[in-house]
Amino acid sequence: MPKTESAPFSYDGLDRVIHEKARLGLMTSLMVHPKGLAFADLKQLCGLTDGNLSRHLQVLQEAGLVEVTKGYEGNRPHTSCRLTKSGRRRFLEYLAVLERLVRDAAKAAGKEHSLLARLGILPT
Amino acid sequence: MPKTESAPFSYDGLDRVIHEKARLGLMTSLMVHPKGLAFADLKQLCGLTDGNLSRHLQVLQEAGLVEVTKGYEGNRPHTSCRLTKSGRRRFLEYLAVLERLVRDAAKAAGKEHSLLARLGILPT
Repeated sequence: MPKTESAPFSYDGLDRVIHEKARLGLMTSLMVHPKGLAFADLKQLCGLTDGNLSRHLQVLQEAGLVEVTKGYEGNRPHTSCRLTKSGRRRFLEYLAVLERLVRDAAKAAGKEHSLLARLGILPT
Repeated sequence: MPKTESAPFSYDGLDRVIHEKARLGLMTSLMVHPKGLAFADLKQLCGLTDGNLSRHLQVLQEAGLVEVTKGYEGNRPHTSCRLTKSGRRRFLEYLAVLERLVRDAAKAAGKEHSLLARLGILPT
């Protein structure tokens, strides 16, 4: 029996490399910008420091999810980041598991969920 | 300017206590079983070892998200776990941020997302 059936709440597909909060923001940000983003833009969009961004990008790069290109724009060094093909695919697979989790929980929340939606705390 | 506007991909609402993969499974599992679950059932549903389950339950308990009741059922020790009222609410708030992230990414994925859905990899 696959683990998903024996342990329906183990959510095995939630790849830990992607799941880490800052990296999840980076992956989403790069998914929304398929042509890639400059280091400085990525840093601002994700609200990260230089050090944190470098560290998380390295993890994503070593896992083959993101490619980082270092070059020059005029005389200034310019670092550009984008998802790899396999990175996009693995992120989509990760998102499918996340969608299942949100559905499981939202369904269970039932009335409470609708109430919070009416209060504007949750989307309808 | 709130951070969400200046750093739309920081997803600040993703509480790290809840976001950890195993704890996310525990929270979802307890949301689906609002009357609570026995330690043994929770362990099986989430695919965790005794040690891991104890450790994560302690973190959730210390954060006020889960209450753990130790008692007896007949002569056998029986541990029961359930979400606290504030745990449910904080989990719903967390889920709202997660839903936003899934929507952001899925929208960006566009055609690719529909393709994977047709292939049965992602839900339609």
